[in-house]
Amino acid sequence: MEKQFNKLLYSLCEKGRLKVLNKIERKGINYFNEFSRDFIPEIDRFINDFFSEKIKISPYSFMADMYKDLNEYCARDGKRIRPLLLLISYLGYKKGRKNLNEIIKLGAVIEMMHSFLLIQDDIIDRSVLRRGGKALHILCREKFSHLTGNKNIGSDTALILADVLFANSLEIIGNAEINLKVKNEFLKIFASTYEMTAWGQVLDVLHSLPKDINLKENISLRISSLKTAHYTIYYPMMMGYVLSGKGDKWEQKLIKDFSLPLGMAFQIKDDILGTFGKKENTGKPGDSDIIEGKMTLLITSALENLNESDRDKLIQLFSQSKKSKSSVKLIRAMIEKSGAFESTIREHNALIKRSVRMLEKLDISGDYKMILNNIIDSIKEINL
Amino acid sequence: MEKQFNKLLYSLCEKGRLKVLNKIERKGINYFNEFSRDFIPEIDRFINDFFSEKIKISPYSFMADMYKDLNEYCARDGKRIRPLLLLISYLGYKKGRKNLNEIIKLGAVIEMMHSFLLIQDDIIDRSVLRRGGKALHILCREKFSHLTGNKNIGSDTALILADVLFANSLEIIGNAEINLKVKNEFLKIFASTYEMTAWGQVLDVLHSLPKDINLKENISLRISSLKTAHYTIYYPMMMGYVLSGKGDKWEQKLIKDFSLPLGMAFQIKDDILGTFGKKENTGKPGDSDIIEGKMTLLITSALENLNESDRDKLIQLFSQSKKSKSSVKLIRAMIEKSGAFESTIREHNALIKRSVRMLEKLDISGDYKMILNNIIDSIKEINL
Repeated sequence: MEKQFNKLLYSLCEKGRLKVLNKIERKGINYFNEFSRDFIPEIDRFINDFFSEKIKISPYSFMADMYKDLNEYCARDGKRIRPLLLLISYLGYKKGRKNLNEIIKLGAVIEMMHSFLLIQDDIIDRSVLRRGGKALHILCREKFSHLTGNKNIGSDTALILADVLFANSLEIIGNAEINLKVKNEFLKIFASTYEMTAWGQVLDVLHSLPKDINLKENISLRISSLKTAHYTIYYPMMMGYVLSGKGDKWEQKLIKDFSLPLGMAFQIKDDILGTFGKKENTGKPGDSDIIEGKMTLLITSALENLNESDRDKLIQLFSQSKKSKSSVKLIRAMIEKSGAFESTIREHNALIKRSVRMLEKLDISGDYKMILNNIIDSIKEINL
Repeated sequence: MEKQFNKLLYSLCEKGRLKVLNKIERKGINYFNEFSRDFIPEIDRFINDFFSEKIKISPYSFMADMYKDLNEYCARDGKRIRPLLLLISYLGYKKGRKNLNEIIKLGAVIEMMHSFLLIQDDIIDRSVLRRGGKALHILCREKFSHLTGNKNIGSDTALILADVLFANSLEIIGNAEINLKVKNEFLKIFASTYEMTAWGQVLDVLHSLPKDINLKENISLRISSLKTAHYTIYYPMMMGYVLSGKGDKWEQKLIKDFSLPLGMAFQIKDDILGTFGKKENTGKPGDSDIIEGKMTLLITSALENLNESDRDKLIQLFSQSKKSKSSVKLIRAMIEKSGAFESTIREHNALIKRSVRMLEKLDISGDYKMILNNIIDSIKEINL
């Protein structure tokens, strides 16, 4: 059944007429998983082809070598949530003939730009691992430190290689064979995406390891909104929408009203896993947010609800630039004691409900509504 | 006379019909200086207006504050050579009605992208000053280090603010009201510009403070070609050319043959000033290249021409990550002794001659040829 579904979907995609989902049996299928299984290989194939060509035409061997590293980095396993949302939104809104091959390229661009940001993020956070491999600045340090007396050669080269990715991204956009008016609208959304994400990142950096905590502005929600809800859900949905050739202001508002709660829920889930998750279930250490001193909703809620002496204690523990295991344990216990764990879970549920309600209102085709519904389900579920 | 010239030029520019230069007296005028005096304020005005608007519409006060810093940084005094070349090339190639206001915006974009690269460059080189002010990472460190325990807060925030500039640049491109086919060609050149510049920057970083020197590949010329000749002269000329609506392959080859020698001469002049210049004449310290361990043509030529024992001594001196005043003096003396100073000056002259010869062949209007000729003259002159 599933195989048949995939083949049919795929063959019709190829022909540029994707109107299958209505016509076939649906029960028990997770449409988002199906969609991912069909399209992640397409996105990755384009990324690999793009870099293969770059490697082939590199005039110097050092360029070819570095393009191999960029290729390996960009093609590492990942959820590809942003390009998939772009494609879902495009296909769900696009009436008539699809131009799927070109849209897949633009999805790949979003993934390459994600690598651009991850490289910078790892330099900033001094992280050593990324997506099951070495962070790029670590890789570069190992490769190039024998060449120069520059002690920062790893982060210096990684930073510049990130710029290569943004130039590559613009090259792909320039070469994409789509309507130029639509491309121009896409470029505007693209610009907003990286502006707003940068602002979210600035806020995040300024409020990590804080020396003073000001609870008047709800900083954790603002960071989540810019860094995650806008970046991961809203802008990819908007990109797909404008690529479908549409430009209705009301629908754009509805997309925002759907995307932002879902994106906030996505971030809150990530916060909960990054504070209370077990590595064996989540694949990432369950104390990373505490150690990095990230201002998550768990922390801000705890600070709001604790009495003054407990609050001061939490601030003192949380602001340490190096934290012992017992400090981490104590911070977790204080979050639970304050009721912040429960209130954060409640907030997460409320956001999920809001996105379900808003999804109904979207003027996107029913098939793609079901795929989005499956995405909501996956964000709803929290396995610590 | 000059004032009349400027007024006439300007009023005709405003009307979108710039065909003045032929019609007025020319003797004794440096057309490039005139052109700069007319257009630098236009470029800067757009930059200031752009940021004023950003400051006005910032939803959060932290954004408005940071936009003020970016505005101050981007508007600092500079030669604006890249946007001016873009404008010269556009006006020199464009027949018929000009769309000067929109092209000035794209010139401003090139200047903002230059700031993007300068911010990163200063982070990489740990420079503290830039264009008569503090490097952005120093400014950010002073402003934000009271907020967080993060010791790298200066470079972390500056790095992200650079990304804001590239997003801003794409926003301006997206909003520019020019023919969309022309804009798409511009976007492709734009992408190549920052790809090739990044590769030049990678090479530069990898070969600074070298542990081992391989003279087989002439690395200093390769770095100059990518980092300066392509970035500063060739790509701005090409941007102006495609913005004029033209796409002749032969003319593009001629632009390259003109631009690259001129750009190489520009870099060699900079190398000579950065090694032998006096600060009171040049405004920058005359030992910076030696201290940073930059692989300039002066160094590679010296290494080629010295006997083995002198070469080993030069390599040993040059590779020190900290150099004493007497080391710097000794390195300079060895460059002179090897004959590299003279041969580099000869190379500079030859490149200048080549660019003069190639300028004749360009199909650009005579007025703008004269402006370009004045640019060649300014690069020709070396005052130590």
